[in-house]
Amino acid sequence: MKQTHATLALLATAATLTACQSPAVDAIALRSMGSFHVGGREVVLSGKPVKEVLFTPGGVPAKVDPNGVYQAEQMYVQYFIPAQQRSSVPILLWHGGGLSGVTYETTPDGREGWLNYFLRQGWAVYNSDAVERGRSGWAQYPDIFKTEPVFLTKENPFERFRIGDGPGSYNKDPAKARLMPGSQFPIEGYDNFTKQVVPRWTSTDEATVAAYTALVDKVCPCVILVHSQAGQFGYRVAQARPDKVKALVAVEPAGFGDPKQVAALKNVPILQVYGDYIEQDARWPTIRGNGLKFLEAIRQQGGSADVVDLPKVGIKGNSHMIMMDRNSDQVAALIQNWLRGKGLTR
Amino acid sequence: MKQTHATLALLATAATLTACQSPAVDAIALRSMGSFHVGGREVVLSGKPVKEVLFTPGGVPAKVDPNGVYQAEQMYVQYFIPAQQRSSVPILLWHGGGLSGVTYETTPDGREGWLNYFLRQGWAVYNSDAVERGRSGWAQYPDIFKTEPVFLTKENPFERFRIGDGPGSYNKDPAKARLMPGSQFPIEGYDNFTKQVVPRWTSTDEATVAAYTALVDKVCPCVILVHSQAGQFGYRVAQARPDKVKALVAVEPAGFGDPKQVAALKNVPILQVYGDYIEQDARWPTIRGNGLKFLEAIRQQGGSADVVDLPKVGIKGNSHMIMMDRNSDQVAALIQNWLRGKGLTR
Repeated sequence: MKQTHATLALLATAATLTACQSPAVDAIALRSMGSFHVGGREVVLSGKPVKEVLFTPGGVPAKVDPNGVYQAEQMYVQYFIPAQQRSSVPILLWHGGGLSGVTYETTPDGREGWLNYFLRQGWAVYNSDAVERGRSGWAQYPDIFKTEPVFLTKENPFERFRIGDGPGSYNKDPAKARLMPGSQFPIEGYDNFTKQVVPRWTSTDEATVAAYTALVDKVCPCVILVHSQAGQFGYRVAQARPDKVKALVAVEPAGFGDPKQVAALKNVPILQVYGDYIEQDARWPTIRGNGLKFLEAIRQQGGSADVVDLPKVGIKGNSHMIMMDRNSDQVAALIQNWLRGKGLTR
Repeated sequence: MKQTHATLALLATAATLTACQSPAVDAIALRSMGSFHVGGREVVLSGKPVKEVLFTPGGVPAKVDPNGVYQAEQMYVQYFIPAQQRSSVPILLWHGGGLSGVTYETTPDGREGWLNYFLRQGWAVYNSDAVERGRSGWAQYPDIFKTEPVFLTKENPFERFRIGDGPGSYNKDPAKARLMPGSQFPIEGYDNFTKQVVPRWTSTDEATVAAYTALVDKVCPCVILVHSQAGQFGYRVAQARPDKVKALVAVEPAGFGDPKQVAALKNVPILQVYGDYIEQDARWPTIRGNGLKFLEAIRQQGGSADVVDLPKVGIKGNSHMIMMDRNSDQVAALIQNWLRGKGLTR
């Protein structure tokens, strides 16, 4: 680990320079942009009474027969292909739990997010909403999904995502909220951030892995960048399609792959990135520890895995929402430099 | 009406020429692109038991206290600003019921949709997901929303949106599905279309009008293009902010504004567009009739409102999903020519 950290300290220095060089003022030239849905399955429901629904006041009521075939567990993907690609493969951005692809768009304080960053660096970018999140739609419960969704209060991510300094730190008034000391989270945008939180299930992991696998089969070879909950999805899909995943960047992954199949990842370069305040948190030392153990198992099979603890390379103050923190460009540049080092982009 | 149709027949001819001239091969140059949420309100819930949630298998369980402040009824907006704007104001695209902004993205058969069309014509485009649809997220029921959502079977839009030829016309096998004779709907993409259908409530109209009004206050003056359910939203918001809405294009609107406030619309140029097969349908003659009555009331207050029945100007075969039909570019060009005629773009 010592050697890795030394190398990555250099990368971090380079990243700082890159991040400061070019303010984002140039036009983004796209060869194309669009969207599609992948995956999913059909589910038949029967035995329910027919309803009459007035969809619009003053409209004409329509008969809605709830018996029939439903589309479920499909996944939404939006893509942007730059006119001048500088990477050898596209990059796929997979968001974390209770969120959607909005994670990588404009930051809560109105700066360009990682979607624009990687696009401006010449990557074709595929930004998705996981199954049952955002534009992927969701299926009725308990008829199709067997459990209830989870909703988060505005306090919850503030205290759980290492933005606020522990329980009771949230306050609607940003001036009264108790931030982690030196926090880089743009507190003035916290309300905006909570507006992008969406309901989520905890029983849809298999469907999500299936849809992401379908996405990889459709658009890869590629690099996959995952955050938080998507750690599990990224590692599992990379284990299922190791030839298609040219690198995996895991930003504070909360879950991992199958420990019995680590050998499948031996030729997939991996970068795992962690923010600040891990040691003070009740859960994150264990989650990070699980991540390091998983990487160590990959290394024992001859794989290559780098870990960056941002504070150890001089990048301080990051919450769990690293792509939204004020220094998001600096961390993106660190990732970009690592990918360049792997020969995946110029 | 006769004069209007003569004028619009000319526009339709021009539209055909425009649509055939330039295949979409050039790069899209963007000055910027991004997203934000507008509107919404906070709701406090109390008296519920605290849960322990394992968000990720192998992760660390987290305490989730469902009591507290929830964000509800916010609205997601994605924007694309071209490097070379040729319109005097932006265009806002508002989708119909049970759908999201995906309506205006890539068509179900993989062609560029109206979002790209208007962007390539030099419009700044704001594409939104209505409240509780797509990336706007949704609020728990019955605690916050008081009613249950409506889910659509795969058959439902096929038969209700004038794609299929009446009840029983749907078949999973596109070769066996009974289309309207001469239908322009890309039947091979029907499955893709159903993947973008999302659950929807029928009790959130007021919240949606509030969020769209907040959007207009943020980014207008503008042109608003609405479809189906959003007819109500477009007309009501235009009545609330007539100075901000420089034109309203209503594509098969299913609802309208307040009949007592039609005078507010007298300086808002209006174009209402209808597809094919209206007369054969059980509901659409009434819905179209309501629309013509509403426009007539506006005209009586000195307003200007044009109606295009596409078949009457030689554009045949359109379903309710006009922006997805094979001739979507031709209809977009008709709208673009109408907007040019109003001096809103070059």
